[in-house]
Amino acid sequence: MPQHLFRLDSSRPFTDQEKTGHNRWHPEVPPVATVKPGDSFRVDCREWFDGAIRNDDSADDIRDAPVSKVHALSGPFAIEGAEPGDLLIVDILDVGPIPQEDSGPLAGQGWGYTGIFAKQNGGSFLVDQFPDAYKAIWDFSGQTATSRHVPGVSFTGIIHPGLMGTAPSADLLARWNAREQALIDTDPHRLPPLALPPEPQDAILGTLSGDAHDRVAAEAARTAPPRENGGNQDIKNLTRGTRIFYPVYVIGANFSVGDLHFSQGDGEITFCGGIEMGGFLDLHVDLIKGGMETYGVTENAIFMPGNTDPQYAEWISFSGTSVTLDGEQRYLDSQLAYQRACLHAIDYLSKFGYSPEQAYLLLGAAPVEGRFSGVVDIPNSCATIYIPTAIFDIDVRPSASGPAQIDPGIGAPRSSF
Amino acid sequence: MPQHLFRLDSSRPFTDQEKTGHNRWHPEVPPVATVKPGDSFRVDCREWFDGAIRNDDSADDIRDAPVSKVHALSGPFAIEGAEPGDLLIVDILDVGPIPQEDSGPLAGQGWGYTGIFAKQNGGSFLVDQFPDAYKAIWDFSGQTATSRHVPGVSFTGIIHPGLMGTAPSADLLARWNAREQALIDTDPHRLPPLALPPEPQDAILGTLSGDAHDRVAAEAARTAPPRENGGNQDIKNLTRGTRIFYPVYVIGANFSVGDLHFSQGDGEITFCGGIEMGGFLDLHVDLIKGGMETYGVTENAIFMPGNTDPQYAEWISFSGTSVTLDGEQRYLDSQLAYQRACLHAIDYLSKFGYSPEQAYLLLGAAPVEGRFSGVVDIPNSCATIYIPTAIFDIDVRPSASGPAQIDPGIGAPRSSF
Amino acid sequence: MPQHLFRLDSSRPFTDQEKTGHNRWHPEVPPVATVKPGDSFRVDCREWFDGAIRNDDSADDIRDAPVSKVHALSGPFAIEGAEPGDLLIVDILDVGPIPQEDSGPLAGQGWGYTGIFAKQNGGSFLVDQFPDAYKAIWDFSGQTATSRHVPGVSFTGIIHPGLMGTAPSADLLARWNAREQALIDTDPHRLPPLALPPEPQDAILGTLSGDAHDRVAAEAARTAPPRENGGNQDIKNLTRGTRIFYPVYVIGANFSVGDLHFSQGDGEITFCGGIEMGGFLDLHVDLIKGGMETYGVTENAIFMPGNTDPQYAEWISFSGTSVTLDGEQRYLDSQLAYQRACLHAIDYLSKFGYSPEQAYLLLGAAPVEGRFSGVVDIPNSCATIYIPTAIFDIDVRPSASGPAQIDPGIGAPRSSF
Amino acid sequence: MPQHLFRLDSSRPFTDQEKTGHNRWHPEVPPVATVKPGDSFRVDCREWFDGAIRNDDSADDIRDAPVSKVHALSGPFAIEGAEPGDLLIVDILDVGPIPQEDSGPLAGQGWGYTGIFAKQNGGSFLVDQFPDAYKAIWDFSGQTATSRHVPGVSFTGIIHPGLMGTAPSADLLARWNAREQALIDTDPHRLPPLALPPEPQDAILGTLSGDAHDRVAAEAARTAPPRENGGNQDIKNLTRGTRIFYPVYVIGANFSVGDLHFSQGDGEITFCGGIEMGGFLDLHVDLIKGGMETYGVTENAIFMPGNTDPQYAEWISFSGTSVTLDGEQRYLDSQLAYQRACLHAIDYLSKFGYSPEQAYLLLGAAPVEGRFSGVVDIPNSCATIYIPTAIFDIDVRPSASGPAQIDPGIGAPRSSF
Repeated sequence: MPQHLFRLDSSRPFTDQEKTGHNRWHPEVPPVATVKPGDSFRVDCREWFDGAIRNDDSADDIRDAPVSKVHALSGPFAIEGAEPGDLLIVDILDVGPIPQEDSGPLAGQGWGYTGIFAKQNGGSFLVDQFPDAYKAIWDFSGQTATSRHVPGVSFTGIIHPGLMGTAPSADLLARWNAREQALIDTDPHRLPPLALPPEPQDAILGTLSGDAHDRVAAEAARTAPPRENGGNQDIKNLTRGTRIFYPVYVIGANFSVGDLHFSQGDGEITFCGGIEMGGFLDLHVDLIKGGMETYGVTENAIFMPGNTDPQYAEWISFSGTSVTLDGEQRYLDSQLAYQRACLHAIDYLSKFGYSPEQAYLLLGAAPVEGRFSGVVDIPNSCATIYIPTAIFDIDVRPSASGPAQIDPGIGAPRSSF
Repeated sequence: MPQHLFRLDSSRPFTDQEKTGHNRWHPEVPPVATVKPGDSFRVDCREWFDGAIRNDDSADDIRDAPVSKVHALSGPFAIEGAEPGDLLIVDILDVGPIPQEDSGPLAGQGWGYTGIFAKQNGGSFLVDQFPDAYKAIWDFSGQTATSRHVPGVSFTGIIHPGLMGTAPSADLLARWNAREQALIDTDPHRLPPLALPPEPQDAILGTLSGDAHDRVAAEAARTAPPRENGGNQDIKNLTRGTRIFYPVYVIGANFSVGDLHFSQGDGEITFCGGIEMGGFLDLHVDLIKGGMETYGVTENAIFMPGNTDPQYAEWISFSGTSVTLDGEQRYLDSQLAYQRACLHAIDYLSKFGYSPEQAYLLLGAAPVEGRFSGVVDIPNSCATIYIPTAIFDIDVRPSASGPAQIDPGIGAPRSSF
Repeated sequence: MPQHLFRLDSSRPFTDQEKTGHNRWHPEVPPVATVKPGDSFRVDCREWFDGAIRNDDSADDIRDAPVSKVHALSGPFAIEGAEPGDLLIVDILDVGPIPQEDSGPLAGQGWGYTGIFAKQNGGSFLVDQFPDAYKAIWDFSGQTATSRHVPGVSFTGIIHPGLMGTAPSADLLARWNAREQALIDTDPHRLPPLALPPEPQDAILGTLSGDAHDRVAAEAARTAPPRENGGNQDIKNLTRGTRIFYPVYVIGANFSVGDLHFSQGDGEITFCGGIEMGGFLDLHVDLIKGGMETYGVTENAIFMPGNTDPQYAEWISFSGTSVTLDGEQRYLDSQLAYQRACLHAIDYLSKFGYSPEQAYLLLGAAPVEGRFSGVVDIPNSCATIYIPTAIFDIDVRPSASGPAQIDPGIGAPRSSF
Repeated sequence: MPQHLFRLDSSRPFTDQEKTGHNRWHPEVPPVATVKPGDSFRVDCREWFDGAIRNDDSADDIRDAPVSKVHALSGPFAIEGAEPGDLLIVDILDVGPIPQEDSGPLAGQGWGYTGIFAKQNGGSFLVDQFPDAYKAIWDFSGQTATSRHVPGVSFTGIIHPGLMGTAPSADLLARWNAREQALIDTDPHRLPPLALPPEPQDAILGTLSGDAHDRVAAEAARTAPPRENGGNQDIKNLTRGTRIFYPVYVIGANFSVGDLHFSQGDGEITFCGGIEMGGFLDLHVDLIKGGMETYGVTENAIFMPGNTDPQYAEWISFSGTSVTLDGEQRYLDSQLAYQRACLHAIDYLSKFGYSPEQAYLLLGAAPVEGRFSGVVDIPNSCATIYIPTAIFDIDVRPSASGPAQIDPGIGAPRSSF
């Protein structure tokens, strides 16, 4: 194990640890440690809701999930010599659930969860069809996940951090806040909201305190969206062996990480998505001095995925186009097309005995692929979703004999109201 | 070779063949042949512009491409016993360029093309950045493609039909026309247009003639978009060995096919996209009686991709979010996010000596993957594009030593004005 | 299609064609054509027994297979400028069954065969357990193979030439003959024989005739074994897209090819193995002048396999060690270990309803992998064989519920005596 | 982490631990723990030489490696209810180097080693060409290995246990001893020996002591070879996610495990092979009652490999046949053919600047594939070895420009004499 720079004790809350992380983006959040280019180090990560979600058969915790508290991030880590204009190289040497702890009340201790957010609490990709909160608990056995709430499936996790990134400069942060507020202003009372403005309530900012804390808390950006600094990209392919290149916007780069997933389907469609857990990362960092200009990478992360993704060879796939469920034609809307593809997959799986919620939770958690198949054929985008057939206990291919039936078991818990 | 049901003579135009295909969707286009469930048969396909694009170093033909004439489709093929409510199983036994002809003036005779459509003529995915017409000619050597217009790359084609589908019912067709006209009506003079209404000019409708021809031509839907019947899905994964299931909307199903691609990147982003060619398909058909209801597949095609896709193991990947180039924040817009990811990839490749147009044409043609990575992290979608590094003669990974330089050669031809 | 340099008419025997190939190795077999480095060309290939094996339900033709007539080779092709010491680069652009002919009496016309050679006629890898002749006919549907003689399986062929190589020099040929005769002399009456000496009977030597023919026929090496020139390597991975580098031993290189397989398991264990067929190859050739010394490739072919092999992701695997069936311990004998692994696989498949011969034929024909797992752990080698589970209609994984049963159908035909 | 049933303290020798394992096979070695079908548990494993090999630049430790002490095995573990005739299911949930310890003097603490055994001490696959002892130290960074002794390469480890198996019955053990002694007796003074008889010296037998120890030590089989019980199979594909089925020969099955490898090429050709390390396994066990008869698995292990092997897509491959280096023709000898293929690969890599020993060590350690390509083409077997090109920093493909040169650095240490 490389040097352990950020430790978390599973028995204590995120704010009561040896070192305190953060849950907002701001250039002034102080680093928890400084590393050199070429260093390797270990970072523990807390699951994004810091233990608010429980391993039980109720979805009330998902309904009440404290969105203002996310994401519990580890860091920032300052990289010696990093300056604005550099590219920060981050290698994911290893990533996994909480080591040496495979049972306990904290996600990452041998289990994780997927939630469908209620419309009242952020909603999800298919919020109109699934306005209520649901939950699935997944049990880990090695790299395999199964669930009492979604029976009849078993898959190899594609373990990755949902969120990694560098700190924004003050200028970049100001642009984020301005452009997101402008969007919010177009429909400020929308439910779910269009975006989340800075929220001092529940802001965690490392060692900042007093006035400095309050000033930064008032300015700091929420961590939900991916942005120029990487951030909450939720790219399922950032698995072990991946190398990512981040733009550096502040002295030291101030790199942070969190939101580990045991697995996730492309899109993280249920929002409280993938299989959420705490755990650890072993990282290696390096710099390409002046790399932003040299490689034209100035406002986005680029990456080279690892080569140990779970291999599947047979897929059942569904397409969708940019026509709404009500039959309205939209113009080249891949977001809508992917929603329709997902709904088609859910309709299909429902014929095998799954409830729609079970199917939805499965698509959020399993290593499914979502692709932009056609984006120019006016007026319809064509999006496609690919589900590996081998994850099912039954044969899910269409045939003349009709769909086999699984036993849906206790189903996916739904929150009370 | 299975029974050859639809032959095309490469020396004659699409409308002067043994049997005449069609280029519009309508339930009354008469079948060119009838097959039985369980039958295999060969179908020749003409490239979508029927020879209007030439193997030369000018893009004027792309600028002037006769959009009203597309797509030159082979069929319809009636399947004995098929009734509305069935699922039509189509197996792609084989697919390739024009057999036994590897040189000649017709795309598919040993070569194919990728075009960037001009804004005046349909535009493309990145129309604002690339308003003019460009072209790249690709030469085929076995399953490998290279181009004098995009030097320094070589890749294994992922050969597939861009367009396959069943005939719509009269009712379904009426819905298509209504919903697309409603969209057009929101901005009828937009350039490029929001959608394409029925266009009697240049309509090819098999053996229909006289009043029947004129009536059908006035109603028949254009073939550009994918719709409930499959259609122009441009799914690059429909390679040899793929099984597709189409809803049946009319007696006989009336299946048609065309728009072959030697290769294509996810999205077919240049519009005149992938590597366009003529060629052949060997197909096998079967029916699942009543399968639409049984499997809940009523308004979309589902499919199981073949298992002989070209394998690549190392990728350089780019992300994008739903912020416009002007810095405006949009709400969860994966279409925009994928545009930004593509632009990031183009910026990057430009640092290695490619012109932006060369890089754009390459992304349209090579087997690149485009994924919906995050679709819920308000307000930003995260889209990602993956380019196999092995297709380049040079090492395109970022490093401290900076980008190697290719010789861009004669570049990608641009149309005169 | 590249220039068609060697055509075969399926209705006529191998010796009655436009150009005559050969079935022996000798430096003096005259080239059928001369090509330049950089050229691409098409070559038709006859199945190795030139039509002696029929698409029927008898194995008598396998029992009586005319071994002295093999392999019907296409070529030699002289490469302009090739000299001893060069490396000949051969790219397999495409390879497949006889184009445009999918039915007829000749293997390659939509079908192929696998035979277990009888002990009297060459025998096979498991000759002691399977001394009699058996046959399986495989039907091609696109790139998929199925068999009425081995029901319940379906797999994507891994199409390749079993035999390609350059002509030996006179000196190299002399060494072949000397070393093989020395082996034969250790047990000259063994059945099956240890090796095959030159056999003038049935020798085909292109345009040679008269005394020249007789002299060469008396010296020319049989084509059964792989040797320094490549030859009958039966490497299933030489699929489309493969590049091979052959040592050049004579002026012009004199490259020949034949013995196409629609598919084959590692080892080609039934001898009359893989799925034998005629067909075509599209080849591209080039030279590395002096490459034998430069790269140390002087007595073997090296290659880079194509990247479109059929992909399977789940395997059931069997190990074997170098202990004989009688319990005798041998010393690090991987040949024996692989026999034992194959026998273990056959025993296992027999529990699912297959006859041992059906299982044996399947292992010879399907894309199974055979690996040297351990070769140093005295006294036992460990060999392993991997069978893709997806090729079976039933679930062949071990479980508490016991093996499902297939209907073995008419079984694999066995020859009369 | 599942229940930790067998702990090893890295600072103490294998014989001075909480529980003592064993290094011989015998039915009377007492179990260290009993588990139930369905249980998961963690097992620590010591590297096979218990710390005798050091992380330094001398190969004297390899020359003097204490062969009588191997393999340091963890176990046996008794499985409740297991009886002779059952199949024991073992799932490898996870496997890796020593957790939380990435530096220290014990292999597995962030590093591992590959050795070429000297002829005097066991020898290796290519003992005639490499009679002396050599060593390479490999450093682990996440799942990636690099070596100061073999510079210019970097690869993803294919982590696996080299040795797992069930205890033999008394009868089976007697057969092992008899057949191996019979082999030894054919050449009792051979160097290296043909096999290793029971060796009381250095026998470790768990808690056995006194007369019982001495009796068992005199009978117990050495652990070097794979046998009916699995044992030292050195199958590189037994990675995370693998399920193995072992025959049960004694009440309780008495399962043991050891000899972890960070990576290994097919064959483990240098003998002290793969990348040797200590570490841990998380295992899950279950039973198929009576499965040996039901599935015909009575004298061998069968397995289903995991689906997270490192993926490589481009390979440079070498063939070999059964002709000795002296030009003697052998009969269908795949062992020899694989030796020749390996030698060809070594010759080739030497042209790029590697010493033959560096190339040999690399083939033993990297994830190279070794295949039985042809085993019936009398008199020559054809064996092939596949090396992923992506593991090299330089381009190792043959081309007209000749081989690039690496800097061999300090080279692979060779033992003094």
